[in-house]
Amino acid sequence: MSALELLTAALGDLVDVSPAALEAARADHSGHSSPGRPLAVVHAETVEHVQQVLRIATETRTPVVVRGAGTGLAGAANGGAGEIVLSTLRMTAVREIRADDLLAVVEPGILNADLNDILAAHGLWWAPDPASRAISTVGGNIATGAGGLLCAKYGVVRDAVLGVDLVLSDGRLLHLGHRSVKGVTGLDLTSLVIGSEGTLGVVVGATLKLRRLIEGGTCTIAATFPDVRTAAAASAAVTAAGVQPAIMELMDAASLAAVASLLELPPFPAGSAQLTIQTDGPAAASEADTIAAVLRAHGGDTQVSHDREEGERLLAVRRAMHPAMAALGTNLIEDVSVPRSAMPAMFDEIARIERDFGLTIPTVAHAGDGNLHPNFIFEGAEPPAHIWAAADELFRAAIALGGTLTGEHGIGVLKSRWLADELGEEQWELQRQITRVFDPLGILNPGKVFARA
Amino acid sequence: MSALELLTAALGDLVDVSPAALEAARADHSGHSSPGRPLAVVHAETVEHVQQVLRIATETRTPVVVRGAGTGLAGAANGGAGEIVLSTLRMTAVREIRADDLLAVVEPGILNADLNDILAAHGLWWAPDPASRAISTVGGNIATGAGGLLCAKYGVVRDAVLGVDLVLSDGRLLHLGHRSVKGVTGLDLTSLVIGSEGTLGVVVGATLKLRRLIEGGTCTIAATFPDVRTAAAASAAVTAAGVQPAIMELMDAASLAAVASLLELPPFPAGSAQLTIQTDGPAAASEADTIAAVLRAHGGDTQVSHDREEGERLLAVRRAMHPAMAALGTNLIEDVSVPRSAMPAMFDEIARIERDFGLTIPTVAHAGDGNLHPNFIFEGAEPPAHIWAAADELFRAAIALGGTLTGEHGIGVLKSRWLADELGEEQWELQRQITRVFDPLGILNPGKVFARA
Repeated sequence: MSALELLTAALGDLVDVSPAALEAARADHSGHSSPGRPLAVVHAETVEHVQQVLRIATETRTPVVVRGAGTGLAGAANGGAGEIVLSTLRMTAVREIRADDLLAVVEPGILNADLNDILAAHGLWWAPDPASRAISTVGGNIATGAGGLLCAKYGVVRDAVLGVDLVLSDGRLLHLGHRSVKGVTGLDLTSLVIGSEGTLGVVVGATLKLRRLIEGGTCTIAATFPDVRTAAAASAAVTAAGVQPAIMELMDAASLAAVASLLELPPFPAGSAQLTIQTDGPAAASEADTIAAVLRAHGGDTQVSHDREEGERLLAVRRAMHPAMAALGTNLIEDVSVPRSAMPAMFDEIARIERDFGLTIPTVAHAGDGNLHPNFIFEGAEPPAHIWAAADELFRAAIALGGTLTGEHGIGVLKSRWLADELGEEQWELQRQITRVFDPLGILNPGKVFARA
Repeated sequence: MSALELLTAALGDLVDVSPAALEAARADHSGHSSPGRPLAVVHAETVEHVQQVLRIATETRTPVVVRGAGTGLAGAANGGAGEIVLSTLRMTAVREIRADDLLAVVEPGILNADLNDILAAHGLWWAPDPASRAISTVGGNIATGAGGLLCAKYGVVRDAVLGVDLVLSDGRLLHLGHRSVKGVTGLDLTSLVIGSEGTLGVVVGATLKLRRLIEGGTCTIAATFPDVRTAAAASAAVTAAGVQPAIMELMDAASLAAVASLLELPPFPAGSAQLTIQTDGPAAASEADTIAAVLRAHGGDTQVSHDREEGERLLAVRRAMHPAMAALGTNLIEDVSVPRSAMPAMFDEIARIERDFGLTIPTVAHAGDGNLHPNFIFEGAEPPAHIWAAADELFRAAIALGGTLTGEHGIGVLKSRWLADELGEEQWELQRQITRVFDPLGILNPGKVFARA
């Protein structure tokens, strides 16, 4: 029997071959689509379903693409011709919440925001907050090693997972990590799985490290600077001043212009850039005052709000970034990350690439941790060659500044051709060999991450 | 030529075959010694020296044991017959300190306390603080994935390393990780190396994630409870109350008695246990008040000190634990870790094991993160069979409570026979295969961690 026949015999209605499902599984939020349609989308509802799919995949040597909500920005969960798309979107149970141990055990398909709504009733919180949190799954957050706006202060996914249950390519189930906050037994395979983008196995459960909800108000500071370099230098000065904002977002002039157009706001001064900063916790007000003083000393036209609603209005400009970009055309959202002190230099590099390629590259940054999202806008479905050439320059500049190709979106299919540039050939090969220990037949996401053109 | 001849030809005086050096390299602070003496101790001073040693080791198939200050508690750095001990103790340079990026680049041989003395002059701090910090190296801290007293609030080594430079078994040098705080490029090999106990390669450099020194005073709370179970429940209640102590240490009656004897203090009430808690940062005083109220509500005879010197006097009891144990005999310090809520149950298990084996097992705990150090005291150099039988019960109890064999000391040689009990056979084999990707010939610490009796 073929893989599809075996799947249907074993899993019946869970095997979806409707053209709409197959078509939807080709793409993610990067806009990129696989060249062909996958064999089937299997809607796993239990760990056993996942194991059955992988046993059949191993038996028939069929590639498997694990997929959550499909909100990725690097194409890692896109299913192509001859591949099984294994969806964990129906595995949404919260198996356990322990306020005393600050942990929760969840299935991978639950949305980040849904989980946090449930946790909030217990006074708890899972801190990773990718911008996609309302629509992305915890399993997807783990697979990409997601970051977000709050992570300079509250950490990324890697800081917030104690263990994962992993189904290997042959269908075996392993329990990695532990429930205790400390543990150094053997190799840290939990950390290895985080950010592995579907190349090591299928995460079917996760033990998450929680925080208590932060009490007290938040303060929001918005400051406008004459240019992006000054804004970047001011944000670095905030970090250097020893205060720790919960959120520190930077928007350049092109980003502000696009958002002003979308939201029908009065135009921002030409060339200006903005920092939007939020403080929280018991020292929120005094930290906001310190930050405002730093920003003013760096030439920022600064306003401070102690009102949560007004703070949300100030942040609304930043939150409108993605729709504003989408209104301009197809959008390749890049994701370089550099040491904080290198942010002004990275903005210089972006300006150089804009000049060299005749492009406008609207850029926002999680300035508290040096993670920049330059946006390349183009017509049509796939980035044209000159956009990739400009992105290539961007990646090389970030690496040269001591940074990385990707701070939080992952490699997927869109950045696999640059992976060896950052890792070096020897580390690239070592990493690929490690994937082969988990997946000897190479059936897990074979065209992604370690694939080469 | 033999391995020793090749080493001497290549490295001259750096190759130490003096009986004193060979003898010292057989043991660590666990008290355990390798059965035989190593071939040589090589005092590497540069990365190139490390690479030369590993090239020779690969050429001659000679096992290599990496060693820092030899303060480990699991025997992982003990050199035995036919082995090269590669010491990184002379590689002590601090290559870079960046206050703006909150990072430092260091060589592995620098002592944790020496590094922190240097960082303090910059207002900075590397948070991992194993009890051995005055005598243990940063490289050793990384190799074991060390914890410490402060890590419930400030994290363990795994939270404080951005990247490592690793020399592989064949002498190749890889740069793992990055300098940016975010980064998800490929697999997280930095986390994999942390806690790998010399099985994957030799850490010859590390990019450390720093914190700013905490400003403001500390408050210290000491509370005496009628029994250890009540003290453990009170510590769990502190965590459940949503306050985050910097330090929260628990000592049982046998520990208190031993320390009282060593320090010539008046005896503590029979059967009593003590919690010593320290708060820091801007909310130190208010958090101390909250904690004191929780402890009193749980029956603790509680005193609060806002004076740093008095606080140090209160903590001196805890800090005297190791010398107090050493005064009683040879000491096998165990290191189980359980979810915080399971601490009372873990103390019940320890009491049961004490009864069943006719032993007294003085126990201290990092109560903020559920990490217990039960101490087995015996005569002679190696633990007798009934001590191992009792330890075996201890490990099984910790695992059954959702915990782990080792919270911060590692597996080394002393706990390798229990490793598969926690990981399961399939994960054990997978982990061993991963070590083979780094070290195909199996020459890195071959008798440790994944060795079986």
